[in-house]
Amino acid sequence: MTSQAVASLQAEVNRLRHELQTLKVDSHSTIAGDTMFVGQYLVERLVQLGVTKMFGVPGDFNLGFLDFVEDHPKIDWVGDCNELNAAYAADGYARVNEGKIGVVTTTFGVGELSAMNGIAGAFSEHIPVLHLVGVPSTSQQKAKPMLHHTLGDGRYDAYLKASQQFTIAQAVLNSKETAAAEIDRILTECVVMARPVYLMLPTDVAYERIPAKRLQTPLSIEPPANDPEVEEFVLDEIVKLVEEAQNDVIILVDACAIRHGVKQEVEELYRRTGFPVYSAPMGKTAVSESYERYGGIYVGSVSNPAIKEKVEAAKLILSVGGLKSDFNTGNFTYHIPTQRTIELHSDHTRVQFAGFPGIGMKRLLPKLTARLQPFKEDAVQIEVPKFQLPVPQEDNDIISHTWLWPRVGEFFKSKDIIVAETGTSSFGVLDIPLPPESIFVSQILWGSIGWTVGATLGASFGALDRGLGRTILFIGDGSIQLTVQELSVMLRWGLKPIIFVLNNNGYTIERYLHGMTRKYNDISNWRWTKLLETFGGEEGKSCKSYTVRTKQELSNLLDDPTFAKAEVIQLVELIMPQTDAPRALKAQAELSGKTNRYVAEI
Amino acid sequence: MTSQAVASLQAEVNRLRHELQTLKVDSHSTIAGDTMFVGQYLVERLVQLGVTKMFGVPGDFNLGFLDFVEDHPKIDWVGDCNELNAAYAADGYARVNEGKIGVVTTTFGVGELSAMNGIAGAFSEHIPVLHLVGVPSTSQQKAKPMLHHTLGDGRYDAYLKASQQFTIAQAVLNSKETAAAEIDRILTECVVMARPVYLMLPTDVAYERIPAKRLQTPLSIEPPANDPEVEEFVLDEIVKLVEEAQNDVIILVDACAIRHGVKQEVEELYRRTGFPVYSAPMGKTAVSESYERYGGIYVGSVSNPAIKEKVEAAKLILSVGGLKSDFNTGNFTYHIPTQRTIELHSDHTRVQFAGFPGIGMKRLLPKLTARLQPFKEDAVQIEVPKFQLPVPQEDNDIISHTWLWPRVGEFFKSKDIIVAETGTSSFGVLDIPLPPESIFVSQILWGSIGWTVGATLGASFGALDRGLGRTILFIGDGSIQLTVQELSVMLRWGLKPIIFVLNNNGYTIERYLHGMTRKYNDISNWRWTKLLETFGGEEGKSCKSYTVRTKQELSNLLDDPTFAKAEVIQLVELIMPQTDAPRALKAQAELSGKTNRYVAEI
Repeated sequence: MTSQAVASLQAEVNRLRHELQTLKVDSHSTIAGDTMFVGQYLVERLVQLGVTKMFGVPGDFNLGFLDFVEDHPKIDWVGDCNELNAAYAADGYARVNEGKIGVVTTTFGVGELSAMNGIAGAFSEHIPVLHLVGVPSTSQQKAKPMLHHTLGDGRYDAYLKASQQFTIAQAVLNSKETAAAEIDRILTECVVMARPVYLMLPTDVAYERIPAKRLQTPLSIEPPANDPEVEEFVLDEIVKLVEEAQNDVIILVDACAIRHGVKQEVEELYRRTGFPVYSAPMGKTAVSESYERYGGIYVGSVSNPAIKEKVEAAKLILSVGGLKSDFNTGNFTYHIPTQRTIELHSDHTRVQFAGFPGIGMKRLLPKLTARLQPFKEDAVQIEVPKFQLPVPQEDNDIISHTWLWPRVGEFFKSKDIIVAETGTSSFGVLDIPLPPESIFVSQILWGSIGWTVGATLGASFGALDRGLGRTILFIGDGSIQLTVQELSVMLRWGLKPIIFVLNNNGYTIERYLHGMTRKYNDISNWRWTKLLETFGGEEGKSCKSYTVRTKQELSNLLDDPTFAKAEVIQLVELIMPQTDAPRALKAQAELSGKTNRYVAEI
Repeated sequence: MTSQAVASLQAEVNRLRHELQTLKVDSHSTIAGDTMFVGQYLVERLVQLGVTKMFGVPGDFNLGFLDFVEDHPKIDWVGDCNELNAAYAADGYARVNEGKIGVVTTTFGVGELSAMNGIAGAFSEHIPVLHLVGVPSTSQQKAKPMLHHTLGDGRYDAYLKASQQFTIAQAVLNSKETAAAEIDRILTECVVMARPVYLMLPTDVAYERIPAKRLQTPLSIEPPANDPEVEEFVLDEIVKLVEEAQNDVIILVDACAIRHGVKQEVEELYRRTGFPVYSAPMGKTAVSESYERYGGIYVGSVSNPAIKEKVEAAKLILSVGGLKSDFNTGNFTYHIPTQRTIELHSDHTRVQFAGFPGIGMKRLLPKLTARLQPFKEDAVQIEVPKFQLPVPQEDNDIISHTWLWPRVGEFFKSKDIIVAETGTSSFGVLDIPLPPESIFVSQILWGSIGWTVGATLGASFGALDRGLGRTILFIGDGSIQLTVQELSVMLRWGLKPIIFVLNNNGYTIERYLHGMTRKYNDISNWRWTKLLETFGGEEGKSCKSYTVRTKQELSNLLDDPTFAKAEVIQLVELIMPQTDAPRALKAQAELSGKTNRYVAEI
């Protein structure tokens, strides 16, 4: 019996045990044995899932619950400056802590709605985040008085209804009898589906006593098994197509390979088959970018021409965890016919035009690797051009995008977390290879500007949990203004990210989309190097800030070993031309402009 | 015929004209005469409604529309640092510009969801705000590609569904034939109902041409007429009760008297009847607080005892625009039986236990005043204790709440806008009388911390529109962290608010609710006096910052005529004890604690 099959069986045992316990609690509510508060039960479950940090903002309906968090030795309360930043932090934390979840705790109405964009982003990008909301007591929920934080019309379910749009499961803990089962259900969904869930915890229920015994059975977070007959059929079909393609097969790895935890299975696949492997932008660093048969980033017509040609010429594309959004596909310019495509997803498989619901990649991949391994000898004959981008020689000293990205590429180290804000940064990083075991963090589908500041906070904590390296953020001066206060939380916790602020006078990505010289794309210029000090840092001691205006100055800084060690939080203001942009952004903007243009008859 | 009746008729004429025009556009879509773009039509309608500032953040689906805003001579685009702050600003703008609306423009998904808490707050507190969202083109709305800013699952209506919870009307401008009528409908609802509305403007529809003629007929924003027979009956009933009360009648003015534009009608009522008049917290400054027969703030058991006794002893209470939320009623401790209460609302009237739907106060009040005027001679015999709070003598130099509020009360001038953040500030300001024509701005029902920073931005613009005086903000160090970046927008526009930051080491209002010494109620301490400089100000030139630690220092500053003139933006850090709070907050916290307590058995 394979270890996977054993895990699957064990998961089923746990599921059944929980079901039994739920029924027992329901049928006779007399509690035997040790008890604990519902709030404590929830905290313990989070700790079991490996959560070490809870993000959020205290508010009158969650304060009692926060006592449990503050008192627990294995989880820390991270008080954020606001709820949106907290949701972003939970998202960033979950991205780096692969397989774990992020948690954001807010209060009824005012708090939870502020976090909503962050939750919707986690939904869009398949990030497991628990949104825990402290709400009025069960008696208030029934009587519906005009409490502060309500809409004034007695609709106590309005926030829940809004949240249903952006979470895959919701629970209202309105009785102690069902509280534990509901907590377990919601957390299981969160992990297995890798999507946000929403939990309303009334003030009184947090302090209800329930049996502690249920905690002894861990949550069943294994994905469900595939139907063996269908799975076998799918494997046969794929092998047939690979044979027909005469080994001219490439593997294309995308976001959901990371989100649904198959990075290792995918690595087995590409190493043991020898098929060339590429990534989509959202899958960047799912495959080690220093692997000798890794060809780089495929993004339709926005790809580097050499990569585009190799990918589109392949006779068969094995796509793993694809998420075909506009910015992830060069504005939908994949020139790959469905006849030549096999798609592996978390909960279904597609072979050419045929769909196989319920056949998930976590189970399928190891079997596929075993079946495709024999092709290796021939597969390795196919050449893969090396993914690289040397630093160009330019005859000026301006920090251009063409020069910047390959140059910082040389600065990155193994295990770095590289966070790139939507805009010039996310497009700029695409073209350069990142070091082994590094993690690329970006929000290419949802694309909410300002997100990376919160995400950097969460990512930094995630890196600590996992023993990873430096967290390095690239963000524009327009985007950082949305969420800037979260720098103070990094300072407070002694986190040490390096923050590059690309000061180019406004929203450059938007200038490329529309309104190149419009005033609405301007922003006010801040004294960037004073930010850390103002937010409580001691310049030169607990923080360092730099302004860099030329290639030489930046090179000197990057070569400075003290800087590179990142022993305090550092902020580097990069002075850059207003209308310069990375190659990929220019190409994308041109494509977007065609489909998304405003009528030009004005 | 009264002028009101004429206005009512004119409004009906306009409504009918619009209806005719709508039908004509629908039936034959050939366009005769001048045309304009839908986006321009919308901007013109806003200008007609007196809107001079539009708040928001540019984003790829609203950029084309923003060209119309930027090019219009009578409206300015105010680019905010983020969407929540922009929504707060639109709210603050509408509050000061009584009878006008606030407008916040965001982009699809990421932008609009960030603004949602601000919109929900405007709903809760009856503020007319248009939330205008730039969305993908009509063809994209149909084809539903996986665009950035989408949820990745083709649900293009998810944001609309969420918004339906927090707006009273929604419109999706998906055709040029209905665009103008839809714009008119939604704006009319916004003004008449004094609540937020939601408008989705696709990129292509903004640039469709429609007839300009419809603009010549102004919007019908008069509230509907009352049924004369019912109205007459209600008036008789009220007069009967006043007679029975033998003139022992008081008027209690609340939020909706301001929101639904009857301040003037109410003033006529209390001046021409001579009945004593009081305010609820949310109605503060609806009545001039220097009026000789104004008795102060009634807030149930949290009231000053003298006020409480006077109000609750009255034989009849004429309540105008009441909004009985917890913090507005001393946690629901009105000791006024329904038998002794008459309630006037925007869309209904209650006389004791009887409800009269459709009888709105805007029409009723002038007639009521006429009927009650004869009682004046007797009414003025009833004494009204003067609403005042002298500065106390304290034998220490600490800036205590007991001392602070009456002291700053002496600093206020006629026409000041006084903005108080939820927390110690909003409770502190309640007890002191504000000068004539001043405006009190606070969010007592919704209570979203950080709101006042955005609201101060909007209020400052509103004050400019109306030729009012200084805008003065009181906010705690915890609350300002949520939305601090908006200070930079104030600087950019040369606005000159005075900002008092109450530095008391964290969330003091929450300490009073739960967790007095808990770490989760701590925040990080910033260098407050560096904020303005960091955000682009020139200290001593375009901005001034002060730290004040003692009563004497604060008194000196307040007495400094240069400071009082407020010719640049000024920030004053007030060092205050961590656990000091105003009297009203302590009383409220005690009452909340009783109904909202966490089980204490831990």
